[in-house]
Amino acid sequence: MGCPGGICIDIKIERMEQLNIIKIGGTIIDSIESLNDFLAEFSGLDGLKVLIHGGGRKATEIGGRLGIKSNYFDGRRITDQVTLEVVTMVYGGLINKQLVATLQSFGCNAIGLCGADANLLAATKRPVNEVDYGFVGDVKEQGVNSEMMKKILGLGLVPVIAPLTHDGNGLILNTNADTIAQEIGKALAKHYNVQIIYCFEKNGVLRFKDDEGSVIRRIEAADFQTLKAGKVISDGMLPKLENALKAVESGVQTVTIGKASNLLALIKAEAGTQISKAYL
Amino acid sequence: MGCPGGICIDIKIERMEQLNIIKIGGTIIDSIESLNDFLAEFSGLDGLKVLIHGGGRKATEIGGRLGIKSNYFDGRRITDQVTLEVVTMVYGGLINKQLVATLQSFGCNAIGLCGADANLLAATKRPVNEVDYGFVGDVKEQGVNSEMMKKILGLGLVPVIAPLTHDGNGLILNTNADTIAQEIGKALAKHYNVQIIYCFEKNGVLRFKDDEGSVIRRIEAADFQTLKAGKVISDGMLPKLENALKAVESGVQTVTIGKASNLLALIKAEAGTQISKAYL
Repeated sequence: MGCPGGICIDIKIERMEQLNIIKIGGTIIDSIESLNDFLAEFSGLDGLKVLIHGGGRKATEIGGRLGIKSNYFDGRRITDQVTLEVVTMVYGGLINKQLVATLQSFGCNAIGLCGADANLLAATKRPVNEVDYGFVGDVKEQGVNSEMMKKILGLGLVPVIAPLTHDGNGLILNTNADTIAQEIGKALAKHYNVQIIYCFEKNGVLRFKDDEGSVIRRIEAADFQTLKAGKVISDGMLPKLENALKAVESGVQTVTIGKASNLLALIKAEAGTQISKAYL
Repeated sequence: MGCPGGICIDIKIERMEQLNIIKIGGTIIDSIESLNDFLAEFSGLDGLKVLIHGGGRKATEIGGRLGIKSNYFDGRRITDQVTLEVVTMVYGGLINKQLVATLQSFGCNAIGLCGADANLLAATKRPVNEVDYGFVGDVKEQGVNSEMMKKILGLGLVPVIAPLTHDGNGLILNTNADTIAQEIGKALAKHYNVQIIYCFEKNGVLRFKDDEGSVIRRIEAADFQTLKAGKVISDGMLPKLENALKAVESGVQTVTIGKASNLLALIKAEAGTQISKAYL
């Protein structure tokens, strides 16, 4: 083309591809019918996507039948040696493979993975302080293998990720699924335009605990402390929102929290609570 | 280069890359120490490789603890609904992910998969004839997704495959690991120079049942009927050898049967029993 008689700066703005990271928890997994509706809707989503699942109740049930008692501290499961076997079986096997088989039946080319597979999620066993959480893993700095994630997405596959990581020394570790969604989102935000959707049983973050109509539509970092101080956000919602804020501060574009049955509306920001760094 | 004054035929012989498909059964999986030795050796193997595993005893043990009785017919497990859940958990989760985590600790970039993942192994539920095997899958004609297998191998990953297939309608199915090795071997023989190694507890196919020194080093298709008629081959070895012969008749170069602790020697054809179509 040339640039006659002057300084020419050729600016190329490359729009990063959209990636939706969707996390589903125990409640949705426990109900076959609503799970199938959700998976059908998920399968129909255009573009790149990742599904991350928890699976609490099933592990508790199977563990119970095996004579293992689940112990919790602050809503987090304490993972002893036998519980680790149960979550490896139930999260990595039963739930993960059933999700994949169902997605395949909807024409979605899912691939079920845990953090040990392809060394996707490297973690360290949580150090024992006040509480010994047992075989629980905290994802390492740079522990997400984004290059491999990109390659797997590049094959046209849809990763379905069980909440298990590994320590690189042969140990599987139990890791919170919300945290995994956040870590993967943060790592992939360098390569994609990432949106994380946390699906749970409520319509979103509620201003009034039992009023499903009182969804707070938008939360920015600055609002969080006010909402926390006013006790609007408490209990299980606290770590969820803290996770969400960490994610948006690390490059994730939006985190949306809402009801699984509203997936399409959540993705289009027409329902649920959107958390972002700041609305410009 | 040109071809002055004549007809020039340019023959290019492309040597196909070697692919070792190694199958381990329950006995090796049940002993942690020998399993670790095996996995260390497996990790050290050069070139493309796939690991396929069974896992009988662990499923029986967990099933037993869950109050489920394992039923067999002709050495094959009958898979009812609850047994299907157990094998999905134990094969697809517990064993598969522990193998992957251990291989990762040896620097082998393993990825644990079942037949539903990436639609790798499409199967049909076995029709009920004399016996109802329950949720057992027979791999479909063209049911091995060789293109995806090639792509996964192309990423430098080592597939670790659990003996589970799927019917494409959301159902996981239980499929014999020997058969999976054979089906994958046959399908990939079009793209690679395939060798299948079946590891089990004996030194190879024995001429005299209890004499580990009486390994038959080579069996060709023509020898099989003689050995069968002479009852040298019987029981569990019969389907193994029938599988092996089908594989070599369908393009697999060699099938080797031998002891897991001799892996390196088996691969170099220095131990075990080699089955091939014919020795030229």
